[in-house]
Amino acid sequence: MNVALSTAQDQRVYNFSAGPATLPLPVLEEIKDELLNYRGSGMSVMELSHRGQTFIEIQRETERRMRELMNIPAEYSVLFVQGGGRLQNVMIPLNLAAAEGTVGDYLVTGAWSKYSFQDAQALGRGHLAWDGAPHRFARLPSNEEIAWAPNASYVHFTSNETIHGIQFHSVPQAPRGVPLICDSSSDLMSRPVRVADYGMIYACAQKNAGIAGLTIVIIRRDLLERVTSASGYLHYRAHADSEDQMYNTPPTFPIYVTGLVCKWLQDEIGGLERMAAINRDKAAVLYRALDEHAGFYIPHAARNDRSLMNVAFRTASPELDDRFVAEARRHRLSDLKGHRSLGGMRASIYNAMPLAGVEALAQFVRDFAQRNG
Amino acid sequence: MNVALSTAQDQRVYNFSAGPATLPLPVLEEIKDELLNYRGSGMSVMELSHRGQTFIEIQRETERRMRELMNIPAEYSVLFVQGGGRLQNVMIPLNLAAAEGTVGDYLVTGAWSKYSFQDAQALGRGHLAWDGAPHRFARLPSNEEIAWAPNASYVHFTSNETIHGIQFHSVPQAPRGVPLICDSSSDLMSRPVRVADYGMIYACAQKNAGIAGLTIVIIRRDLLERVTSASGYLHYRAHADSEDQMYNTPPTFPIYVTGLVCKWLQDEIGGLERMAAINRDKAAVLYRALDEHAGFYIPHAARNDRSLMNVAFRTASPELDDRFVAEARRHRLSDLKGHRSLGGMRASIYNAMPLAGVEALAQFVRDFAQRNG
Repeated sequence: MNVALSTAQDQRVYNFSAGPATLPLPVLEEIKDELLNYRGSGMSVMELSHRGQTFIEIQRETERRMRELMNIPAEYSVLFVQGGGRLQNVMIPLNLAAAEGTVGDYLVTGAWSKYSFQDAQALGRGHLAWDGAPHRFARLPSNEEIAWAPNASYVHFTSNETIHGIQFHSVPQAPRGVPLICDSSSDLMSRPVRVADYGMIYACAQKNAGIAGLTIVIIRRDLLERVTSASGYLHYRAHADSEDQMYNTPPTFPIYVTGLVCKWLQDEIGGLERMAAINRDKAAVLYRALDEHAGFYIPHAARNDRSLMNVAFRTASPELDDRFVAEARRHRLSDLKGHRSLGGMRASIYNAMPLAGVEALAQFVRDFAQRNG
Repeated sequence: MNVALSTAQDQRVYNFSAGPATLPLPVLEEIKDELLNYRGSGMSVMELSHRGQTFIEIQRETERRMRELMNIPAEYSVLFVQGGGRLQNVMIPLNLAAAEGTVGDYLVTGAWSKYSFQDAQALGRGHLAWDGAPHRFARLPSNEEIAWAPNASYVHFTSNETIHGIQFHSVPQAPRGVPLICDSSSDLMSRPVRVADYGMIYACAQKNAGIAGLTIVIIRRDLLERVTSASGYLHYRAHADSEDQMYNTPPTFPIYVTGLVCKWLQDEIGGLERMAAINRDKAAVLYRALDEHAGFYIPHAARNDRSLMNVAFRTASPELDDRFVAEARRHRLSDLKGHRSLGGMRASIYNAMPLAGVEALAQFVRDFAQRNG
């Protein structure tokens, strides 16, 4: 590592942004090293034709690593598409609830699953199975509270609510035979999941899995055979059936970054069990500091549903919250302001946030409470 | 510039890929320089929150530069979306031909406009105003040949056919009052256009305007008010009306790259008039070399409709074509194989391909003909 690089690294901050979010430094360094000339190709990875062998190998290796990390069964397709969760919100009902009289069953547990439900509703396909709004999206439902639709062709839930900081720690028990569709945008590859429990898992990449512009769809192949009212880009099968699963030009650079993130997870972290242990440790460090000053800090989430990815909390006053965020920034702890819909603070501590960053924040949490409590 | 950088630059090839395509070297160098720490922010541009002031300024500057370069009138919105031309193919009919009994009128002049027509047809909204298939997509229609639909709510055409190498050098004369929708994916910002002649211009970024993952939509605001059958992400107005025109997380890094490309066009090239002159010179150099060996080389496009962006040609035999592509690669002239649907060779000479690269290719074109003619 040369001197210029060390300086740039020293000047980096701990970035607690909810996404786009911090990336592993070794990933950024590898991108930088090969930016003008990707492995002897004579061009940047951004300039590679998506139909050329060099890029096709990048995409295949990205998929292979993701399959290994998540232990994805062979009967699932892995699609690299665009448009984020919001485009999935439209594609899911068009593809999976096209048959007359069917609906998607939605667990509305926060801002993101609410959008998913509303987008399905606009297509006449949304059924509200549980609404967390009366509970200020501070807790998740028990299985007994959920009113499943009798005509559901799928169940949709959001495994981690990025804004409200609540996370499913077990899979909801959908009616037998109804496939579970999971928006895992903010916790994909943060812990092991049993993919066979799901019909489909999707995620935008810019939290744990890479950068903005890539949406990952892991879908059981039998769901591709359903009657559909989707056409063109909106049809999952068009993507799955295309040569090299490229229906059109995919977001090549974001796919490359996701490949590097997967490599980092495999080679430097050691897989998702190990990543999950690190993430539990990180979250414990931060929640412990907040709990030590209970009363001064008010966490949003019910204790059992606390997210390991997004920690939402506030103090007694918006003015004190603002001071917290501003002072933290001077300690090189960045992007701690909560989402405007909830106020307060939010610390996103995704895979790439090192324990040292969380420890620095926990120390600041304690100091700030002592100075202002 | 340090030694490592010069070496990487020396080892770069001339990349004639149709897209993703070559980028201006100063753009790549700027990306590399600030990759770990964007202008003192302490983070990579890839890690910036899309709702933070630093990224919002990147997006605003990108839009401002594009408006200056293209002289975009105030009554047009500039949207940065995802999904490429293929998603636009679906969004256009849903947004602009939703009223009962209306259609989109399509000029099918090559592979890409054919996809656009077929995607509209799948939605029951496509009318074929002219079909270039019987002409092997080697020429464009005269205005007299076009059978306009009486119930068209828009006319769609593709200003440059990337695969077949033909390009409109004037705007088709659509019936009065019917807005022109132009897929300008492979010639956006390669020459000045009068934006007021169009209802909407769209382009994927990975040819002249940046990298894969960003789709640029320039749309006249009155078209946003039409009756629509689009909802959610598919609704143009949802994008235009969102705060900072971000309906959801945009492809932040590709937007940043497009901003740098626009800066290069403004500050290093000197605007689109100058860029167009350079592009005319480059195309003239290559077509002249091919025409000098007419008979040995067979250009695909009719002379009057030749593209200044994609030069498609072949020799008398596929074996000789293969030898041309392989030998050229050894001369550091890369990605010259034609699209599989057409065979032969294709040289894409977008904005970022320097004149020196085209001259090197022209020299090789002559040498190869002399050795094999």
